[in-house]
Amino acid sequence: MPAKPTSTDRTPPSGPGPLIAIGGAEDKLGRRTVLKTFLSLAGGRDAKIAVIPTASSLGPEVVEVYDALFRKLGAADVVAARPDSREAAEDPEVVGLLDDVTGIFMTGGNQLKLSAIVNGTAFGEAIKAAHARGVVVGGTSAGASIQSSHMVAFGTGGSTPKQRMTQLAAGLGLIRDVVIDQHFGQRNRYGRLLMLVAQSPGLLGIGVDEDTGAVITEENGAEIMRVVGRGVVTVFDGRNVVSNAHEARRTAPLLASGVQLHVLPAGSAFNLTEKTLVREAPVVDPGEAEELAVAGRDLKRLARDIAAGDISPTVLRRRRARQSAEGDHV
Amino acid sequence: MPAKPTSTDRTPPSGPGPLIAIGGAEDKLGRRTVLKTFLSLAGGRDAKIAVIPTASSLGPEVVEVYDALFRKLGAADVVAARPDSREAAEDPEVVGLLDDVTGIFMTGGNQLKLSAIVNGTAFGEAIKAAHARGVVVGGTSAGASIQSSHMVAFGTGGSTPKQRMTQLAAGLGLIRDVVIDQHFGQRNRYGRLLMLVAQSPGLLGIGVDEDTGAVITEENGAEIMRVVGRGVVTVFDGRNVVSNAHEARRTAPLLASGVQLHVLPAGSAFNLTEKTLVREAPVVDPGEAEELAVAGRDLKRLARDIAAGDISPTVLRRRRARQSAEGDHV
Repeated sequence: MPAKPTSTDRTPPSGPGPLIAIGGAEDKLGRRTVLKTFLSLAGGRDAKIAVIPTASSLGPEVVEVYDALFRKLGAADVVAARPDSREAAEDPEVVGLLDDVTGIFMTGGNQLKLSAIVNGTAFGEAIKAAHARGVVVGGTSAGASIQSSHMVAFGTGGSTPKQRMTQLAAGLGLIRDVVIDQHFGQRNRYGRLLMLVAQSPGLLGIGVDEDTGAVITEENGAEIMRVVGRGVVTVFDGRNVVSNAHEARRTAPLLASGVQLHVLPAGSAFNLTEKTLVREAPVVDPGEAEELAVAGRDLKRLARDIAAGDISPTVLRRRRARQSAEGDHV
Repeated sequence: MPAKPTSTDRTPPSGPGPLIAIGGAEDKLGRRTVLKTFLSLAGGRDAKIAVIPTASSLGPEVVEVYDALFRKLGAADVVAARPDSREAAEDPEVVGLLDDVTGIFMTGGNQLKLSAIVNGTAFGEAIKAAHARGVVVGGTSAGASIQSSHMVAFGTGGSTPKQRMTQLAAGLGLIRDVVIDQHFGQRNRYGRLLMLVAQSPGLLGIGVDEDTGAVITEENGAEIMRVVGRGVVTVFDGRNVVSNAHEARRTAPLLASGVQLHVLPAGSAFNLTEKTLVREAPVVDPGEAEELAVAGRDLKRLARDIAAGDISPTVLRRRRARQSAEGDHV
């Protein structure tokens, strides 16, 4: 497909677009950090957003909310794309709604309804194609879960991983070898994500808190996940796990030893390809830095004096007192 | 102190006694697995148990419950030792109650009340001395927390670790370099234990679920923790953690990347000294083992036949059919 001409000076996208998995209940009235991040990535004032409310059991009101929100935040246009059956998801008119958008936003609801209608249809392929050509794909709650290759279909809460407490289904696969869970801290879903990683240690378990977004972009061949919003993104890496998942009976608590745990608040970044934290430069305290700079100047003068060999104890004492007084005014 | 003569053939204890940290709400009417484990380690029908209800805000009824329970489970004797002030904890009569017991059981309640009355008094020293000479020391909820060197004083629940969400105080120190939390899964205390490990990565964080016990014994110079009961024991090992705990402000969510997580159900064992799972022999399916044994015998006969060089395709086919029929009856 030829590159679409744009009327702005926005850098034309190359390669797949960013993904944003939001843990549900994103702030819609206050700072709206997460939604603003989505809109900004989608082009800000030039954004044309398709809202996909298929997961939701609500009527047009769910679209109205996001339509109003994105327009208020400055989006140029918002359209609703709501296939409600696999037949509708093959309708060229519905599929065509995604042709010229800069962002796709999937609402919350029931991810199994969303995946059952969308996956493997022309509409599902159009979402993937849009992502591949640089369109931003975001979603909240159910709309976050469906982005991964392996999707939590449903399951119960609780901290303790137990056999059979949750089910996997196939997601859209915009991001591979991960399983994304949402409302993570708020609904205490540690247990079910740990169960999935214990049973499938090749998957990275990613739990996204409410009003929090995991922004995934491709950078130099690696997939980098950055965290925005109020909560944290929790990552379970089961590479070295020892588990009894293959022999645990019924609903018994599971052994899961050696899971690498990463709790990532806003501002942190994680390399999903390497499965490691992206280390940022440490925060420097300006007061401490200034103090050190002054001490460094003092030491240089002292070294010069010693090299000149002109130091008597009395001279040194006076000079240091003077330097220290000067230092206070720097 | 000379070894106390026992009237039974129980092995006289040498070295420190077992510890049992129970996550609260242990089953008192049904299987009573956790309490039975405590009593069995304390000598079963020869057990003399001191119940310490100092943490509790309840009156004599808390002692009455455990008195009735331990006697029903077969204990020879149960005494109450309840200092309610630091003065009382220096009273030789109260302290003397621990002289000839085989088990000490600390009830639930407020661990800060328990530690504030007991720690650094003659009574506190008597608990440590009893542990050192082989007496079993157990406790539930508050009575579990106080066993570690570093104790969760109080704090809020929630999955997400946040700066200042919980406080440390000094525990009895029966087990060092750990911090024990309780009601772990049920009250969703992942966050606060992670906060503590992020701030103090030298501590091993141990979260014990309700109706679950962590039994800690010294074996060949290592401290081994075995899990009994209905839930799991969760271990956070912060040795390799990367955290922003030293600079996170107010109540911000914390970065805690690279925590080793171990979820341990009943039957599993963990080496607290090495901070590794104790690997048990894998469970062998008897049907699969039998099938393999039969196949092994078949292969041996086949190898013998080949070595003898007397095999024609027809003979081989007949022989294998015969061997297979025999195998079915093995």
